[in-house]
Amino acid sequence: MNTFGNRFRLTTFGESHGKAIGGIIDGMPAGLVVDEAFVQQELNRRKPGQSDITTARKEDDKVEFMSGLFEGKTTGTPIAFSVWNTNQHSSDYSDIKDKYRPSHADYTYTMKYGVRDYRGGGRSSARETISRIVGGALAKLYLKRLGISIQAYTSQAGEIVLKKPYTELDLSATEASIMRCPDAETSEKMVELVREVKRAGDTIGGVITCVVKGCPVGLGEPVFGKLHAQLAAAMLSINAAKGFEYGMGFEGVGRRGSEMNDVFYSDETGIHTRTNHSGGIQGGISNGEDIYFRVAFKPVPTLLTAQKTVNEAGENVEMAVRGRHDPCVLPRAVPIVEAMAAMTIMDAVLMAQGTKLEE
Amino acid sequence: MNTFGNRFRLTTFGESHGKAIGGIIDGMPAGLVVDEAFVQQELNRRKPGQSDITTARKEDDKVEFMSGLFEGKTTGTPIAFSVWNTNQHSSDYSDIKDKYRPSHADYTYTMKYGVRDYRGGGRSSARETISRIVGGALAKLYLKRLGISIQAYTSQAGEIVLKKPYTELDLSATEASIMRCPDAETSEKMVELVREVKRAGDTIGGVITCVVKGCPVGLGEPVFGKLHAQLAAAMLSINAAKGFEYGMGFEGVGRRGSEMNDVFYSDETGIHTRTNHSGGIQGGISNGEDIYFRVAFKPVPTLLTAQKTVNEAGENVEMAVRGRHDPCVLPRAVPIVEAMAAMTIMDAVLMAQGTKLEE
Amino acid sequence: MNTFGNRFRLTTFGESHGKAIGGIIDGMPAGLVVDEAFVQQELNRRKPGQSDITTARKEDDKVEFMSGLFEGKTTGTPIAFSVWNTNQHSSDYSDIKDKYRPSHADYTYTMKYGVRDYRGGGRSSARETISRIVGGALAKLYLKRLGISIQAYTSQAGEIVLKKPYTELDLSATEASIMRCPDAETSEKMVELVREVKRAGDTIGGVITCVVKGCPVGLGEPVFGKLHAQLAAAMLSINAAKGFEYGMGFEGVGRRGSEMNDVFYSDETGIHTRTNHSGGIQGGISNGEDIYFRVAFKPVPTLLTAQKTVNEAGENVEMAVRGRHDPCVLPRAVPIVEAMAAMTIMDAVLMAQGTKLEE
Amino acid sequence: MNTFGNRFRLTTFGESHGKAIGGIIDGMPAGLVVDEAFVQQELNRRKPGQSDITTARKEDDKVEFMSGLFEGKTTGTPIAFSVWNTNQHSSDYSDIKDKYRPSHADYTYTMKYGVRDYRGGGRSSARETISRIVGGALAKLYLKRLGISIQAYTSQAGEIVLKKPYTELDLSATEASIMRCPDAETSEKMVELVREVKRAGDTIGGVITCVVKGCPVGLGEPVFGKLHAQLAAAMLSINAAKGFEYGMGFEGVGRRGSEMNDVFYSDETGIHTRTNHSGGIQGGISNGEDIYFRVAFKPVPTLLTAQKTVNEAGENVEMAVRGRHDPCVLPRAVPIVEAMAAMTIMDAVLMAQGTKLEE
Repeated sequence: MNTFGNRFRLTTFGESHGKAIGGIIDGMPAGLVVDEAFVQQELNRRKPGQSDITTARKEDDKVEFMSGLFEGKTTGTPIAFSVWNTNQHSSDYSDIKDKYRPSHADYTYTMKYGVRDYRGGGRSSARETISRIVGGALAKLYLKRLGISIQAYTSQAGEIVLKKPYTELDLSATEASIMRCPDAETSEKMVELVREVKRAGDTIGGVITCVVKGCPVGLGEPVFGKLHAQLAAAMLSINAAKGFEYGMGFEGVGRRGSEMNDVFYSDETGIHTRTNHSGGIQGGISNGEDIYFRVAFKPVPTLLTAQKTVNEAGENVEMAVRGRHDPCVLPRAVPIVEAMAAMTIMDAVLMAQGTKLEE
Repeated sequence: MNTFGNRFRLTTFGESHGKAIGGIIDGMPAGLVVDEAFVQQELNRRKPGQSDITTARKEDDKVEFMSGLFEGKTTGTPIAFSVWNTNQHSSDYSDIKDKYRPSHADYTYTMKYGVRDYRGGGRSSARETISRIVGGALAKLYLKRLGISIQAYTSQAGEIVLKKPYTELDLSATEASIMRCPDAETSEKMVELVREVKRAGDTIGGVITCVVKGCPVGLGEPVFGKLHAQLAAAMLSINAAKGFEYGMGFEGVGRRGSEMNDVFYSDETGIHTRTNHSGGIQGGISNGEDIYFRVAFKPVPTLLTAQKTVNEAGENVEMAVRGRHDPCVLPRAVPIVEAMAAMTIMDAVLMAQGTKLEE
Repeated sequence: MNTFGNRFRLTTFGESHGKAIGGIIDGMPAGLVVDEAFVQQELNRRKPGQSDITTARKEDDKVEFMSGLFEGKTTGTPIAFSVWNTNQHSSDYSDIKDKYRPSHADYTYTMKYGVRDYRGGGRSSARETISRIVGGALAKLYLKRLGISIQAYTSQAGEIVLKKPYTELDLSATEASIMRCPDAETSEKMVELVREVKRAGDTIGGVITCVVKGCPVGLGEPVFGKLHAQLAAAMLSINAAKGFEYGMGFEGVGRRGSEMNDVFYSDETGIHTRTNHSGGIQGGISNGEDIYFRVAFKPVPTLLTAQKTVNEAGENVEMAVRGRHDPCVLPRAVPIVEAMAAMTIMDAVLMAQGTKLEE
Repeated sequence: MNTFGNRFRLTTFGESHGKAIGGIIDGMPAGLVVDEAFVQQELNRRKPGQSDITTARKEDDKVEFMSGLFEGKTTGTPIAFSVWNTNQHSSDYSDIKDKYRPSHADYTYTMKYGVRDYRGGGRSSARETISRIVGGALAKLYLKRLGISIQAYTSQAGEIVLKKPYTELDLSATEASIMRCPDAETSEKMVELVREVKRAGDTIGGVITCVVKGCPVGLGEPVFGKLHAQLAAAMLSINAAKGFEYGMGFEGVGRRGSEMNDVFYSDETGIHTRTNHSGGIQGGISNGEDIYFRVAFKPVPTLLTAQKTVNEAGENVEMAVRGRHDPCVLPRAVPIVEAMAAMTIMDAVLMAQGTKLEE
C-alpha cells in the first residue's frame, strides 16, 4: 500500500534518515517533455529552511532520475527517482529511540510491525512527502498541456482565518508570502503568530485551500471512485491532515436546499452553473466549474517542552525532543496538497479515457 | 470502479428503476454464520417510509442471496445478492427526462457517458446505497466476533447542533429517535425543523458522527492507505457527502500543539492516551482508542418548487420535480455511514494479517 | 479474486447447484449496442446436451440482464447478469458429499475453506464458466467494431491430432462440426474416438487452438503484463487447462534462432513479418500479425467406474460417481477459450489508451 | 503494469543502459532477517560471463538496498534497491538505433510509445530481470522459514532432451553444471551443442523445469487466480518464454481419464495422492504434493549474422548486430524462473491468510 493511483501510479520508498527517499512513477504517457528544473523548483517549495518560520534544518533535496526518460522525454516506461539523504548519520536518537512521542506514529508503528526505524521518525516522517512532490510535478506538467492548473494556499493558521473566498484573491501572490497566504495583510498576521508560537516552543495548525481550474466535464468515477472521494483520500494521506471538505463543505449543512442548489444556465460558451456551492463536482464527476476544497492540518506534535509518555518497556517516563522542527507545517504543506491534487486529477483524466464509444 | 475494498471487496450494480440493486461480496472468510434477519433489519433502517420525516415512498427492500452461503454459513466463495425493484415501471419521468436537475448528477453523467438512464436518477440514485448496507451488515457480523462495534448518529441537522461529545451520550438511545439522534431533546428540535422545512417544500443537510469501538492497535496502512484516508474515501463516496473530519478535525487547527497532543500512559490494562484528540488513529494506524469521525451532508437537492435549469438541447428552461422525496437524508444515512465504516475496518483487519512474522 | 481484468473487469459468482450463476461487468464503455440474441447464442455453444458427445444433462441457460443497459445500449454503469439454475434441488449428492473425487477440487476446497458446497461441485464446477461466456460475448461485440475477431477450434482430441496449421484451414467450418474441429476428416475421427471412450466409461483430453485476427500493433504491457502472459493466465484459469503456448511454443525450442526469427519487410500496406513464429506478439506487445495460441486440456476426471479415494473422516474408501458427464470437454470449451481471449484483448485495448501523448 | 503480485508486490524500473535497474518490494512482512550475501549470490547466478557458454559481457551486478531494512531486518516498509549500470556510456548503438531487430521488441515498442530507448534494448532488455532476482531472493528467504523450497533446472536445450522426470534426478547437482542441468551426461551434450551453435553465430532455445517442494495445502485462488494460472503469467512474463505447462501438461492430453486421475489415500502422515499427474495443484489450489511445471524458451533472437529488416523510415534494409550475446538463455534463465516462482508462491501464502475463520 505504498502505491497511489490507478492508471497513473506512484510507488514510494524511503525513511527519514535512510539512504534515500524516492519512488517509481508508472503509467506516465510517453512523449512528455520533462522540465527537470521545474521538478527541482517544486521540491524547493517543500524543503526546510526556506524562511525563519520553517525548521532551520538544511536539507539539500536534489532529485536524481534513474529511468524512464530518454533525450528529455518520457518513454512510457517507469520513471524512478531518488533524493539522497545527505545527513543520514549525523544524529543522535537517544531521546526518541525507545520512547513513544505523543501524537506521533512511534507507538502504532511499533505495535503494527514489531519494530520501527526510529531515526528521525523513519517511514512516518514527513520527509516521505518528497516523493509526492516529484510525482505531482510530473503530473502538473502533463495537466498543463490540457490547460488544467492547480493552486493551493494557506487560508487559516491557528486562529487567524482568511475569510475571503478564493474568487476574491489574487492567487498569483501566494508565493510572495512566506506563509503562502495570498492576502498580504492576513499573511503578516499569520507570520507574526507563528513567530510567537515558535518562541513559546509550541506549534499551530491551520487550513490549506486548493483550487483546480480548467478541468473538463466528466472526471471521476461514480459510486466508490467519486472525484471528491479520491481527493479526500489523497489529502488525508498527507501527514497531519485531519479533515477535508469541498464546495460549501461543513458550512453548507446549515443551509436550505433552495439556497444551496447550483442553477444551470446556458450561453454561447456552453453550460455553466450560476453559483458553485458544489465545488465543481456533481454526483462525483467534475462539471467543468472550478474545483475547490479545504484541508485541515493539526498542530505539529513535536514540541520542545517536556512531555509525559511511555517507553517500549511500558514504563511511564518523561521526554523532551531536541532539534529543529517546524512550528507550523502550512507553508511547506501547500506544495504537497498541490502535488496530491495533481496526481489525483491526472489519474482521473487517464481513467476517463474510453468511457464512451467514439461515434 | 464499482468495487470497494482491497481484501474485502464489494462490487455493486443497479439503477434506481432497473430490475434490481445488488452486488457481489468477495473476500469474506469462510465459516461465518450469516444472520439474514440482521441483514434485513439493517436494510429496514435505510428504507424509505420509516417515519413522517422521510420520503413517503414505499419500497419493500427484501434481500435475496444468490450464492456464497451454504447451510447458513459463508463458504469463502463470492456472495451475490439482489434487492429487486418492485416499482420499476410505475413512474412517469417526463419531468426530468431531458432536463438537468440542479446539483444532481444528470448533467455530469450525460456528458461523461453520452447517455443516462434517467428513470429516478438511474445509477446516481441514493437507492444504490442498498448494496452498501448489505455489504456493511456482513462486515458487522464479522467484526462483532472480534469485539468491534460501530455506531453512528445524527449530530447536526440544519442549524440544530448536538454539542455534547459522543462520550457524554447514550448511543443506545439512537434508534429510538426518528432522527437517529441519541439526545432526546435535540432530536425533538431536529424533528420539528425537518417538518417545518418539509412543509416549505425545502430541504436541509446535517452532520453524522460515527464511533468505532474495540479496534485493535495496528489497523491502517502507512503513507497512502492511512486508516483515516480510507475512511474519508468511504464516507465521501456516499451521495450528498461534502466533508469528513476525524478526531478534533477542523476545530483542532485553532489549538496549540501543547493542547492537542495525546499523552501516553501505561497501567495494568496496557498503554493508553489521556485524551483522544487524535480520534484513535496516529500516523494512519489505529492506536486502540475509540475511532470517531464526522461526515457533512448537504441538503437534498430535490426541491418541490420550480427551478431554472438547462435541458439536453442546451436551452434555458424551468423544471419542477414531482413526487415524494426526503426533506433530510440524515436518518436514513446513519446506517449507510455505519456500513461503509464496517467494510473499511473489516478490510483493514484483513490487510493487517501477516504484517509481521510470527516469532 | 473472483474478478478478471484491469479496465474491463468481470466479477463472477455462483455455484453449480445454487440459485444462479452470474456476474458483474465493469468498465464497458457506454453506447455499445448489446445484441442479446448473440449473447444467448454464445451461451448455447457452451451448454450441455448439444450432441451425443457432450453430457446429456439438460440445462436451459437463459441469461437475464439486471442492470447497465438502457434502451438496448450500455450506459457505462455495471452490467449485472444471472443465469438461473433450474435444477438446483433435483439431485442426490450422497455419492460425493463426504468423499474427495480424485483430481477434482473437493479436497483442496475443503482444506482451504474448512467447508465446501458439495452440490454438483459447487463453485469448482465448470458451470462457473457460464459467466465467462457472457463477459466474452460482450467483449466480442466491442472488438467487432474495431475489426478484431476471435476463432478457436479443437486441434487435438486424445491421440488424434489435426496437423495442419490454422492458415491452411477454413475456420468458418468449425461450427458445423460437433467436435468444433474445422477439418471434416479429422473431426470424424475425433467424434468416433469420443464415442468409443464414452462407451468405456472413460474420458479424454485434447488441445484447443485459438486465432485472433485484426489486432492493432501495440496491445500488451511490457514486463509483467505481456499480452501472452495475460492470455496464459486467462486460459489456465479455465477448468481442466494444463498448458499454454503461443506462436511456435514448445515446438520452437528445438529450432535455431536463424530459423525462428520473423524477418520484417515493408510494403505499401505497412510493416509486416515474412513468417509469424512469434505468434503475433513481440516483447509482450502485439505486432499486428495474427495472434495464435494453444491450450491443453486434461481428460475430464469424472469417471463412471469405481475409484479409490479418501473421505472427510480421512478413511480410505471407494466411490463411483453417477450421472451424466462429458467424456470430453473440448467442444464446449471452444467458446470458453474464445470468451477469455476476447476479454483479455478488450482489456488490453482499453489499457493501451493514452499510452502516448497526442501530437 | 510494472508491478507484480497482489499482497507481495514488486514494482521494477530501469533500462539496459540507463543509470540503474531496480525496484521496490512492498508487502514484505516485518522481522525477516535479510541475508544480503544470499541475494548477491542469486544475482551472480543470473549475471553474464559465468562460463564460456554465456555472453562474455562483464557486468558487475552489485545490489544496493536503499530502504526498508533496519539493523539487518525488514521493517514492513517498502524495500527499494538498485543495481547500478556501470557501462552505460560505453556503447555505440548505430547498428540498432533506427532499425527493428527481427523478433525483438524494437518495432512494437516504437509503435506503442512513439519512442524507444534503443540503448541495448532499453526496457525490453533481459537486464530488466535483475529486479526479479532480487525480489525472488527475498521471497525465497521468507519461504525457507515455512519449509518451502524451489529448484529449477534445464531439461531441454535445442534438441537435447533430459527425459528423466525430476523425481529421478539429484537436483542438488544442478549448480555444478554450467548448463544448470543436473544430469551430468545430458549436461555435457547440451554444453557441446551450445558451443557448436555459438561457433555458427546461431542460437538455441530450450525448456526449464521447476519444482516447488513443501507447499502447504490451500494456496491459490479458485476461478481466475488459480495457482497455476498465476504461475503461468509469472513465467510467460520472462523474456523469450513461449509456453507453460504443469503436471502432465500437453503430454497428458493424449491419455485417458482413468490413467490420469491421482487417487487419494490416507496414512498416518495425512492425505496424499498415489500419483501426481496434477502437478500438485487441483482446482487451482495446491494439494500438498510437489508442484512442478515446465517453461519453453525460444532461441535468443540476437544473431551475429546479417538479417533483413525494416528501419524507422519504413525502408527495407539489412542489419547485423555486433557485440557479445548469449547463444542460449537457459543457464541464466534458471534463477529467473525460480525467482518468479518464489514471488508467486509467497504472494499466494499471504493471500491465503484469513481464508477461513479461526475456530
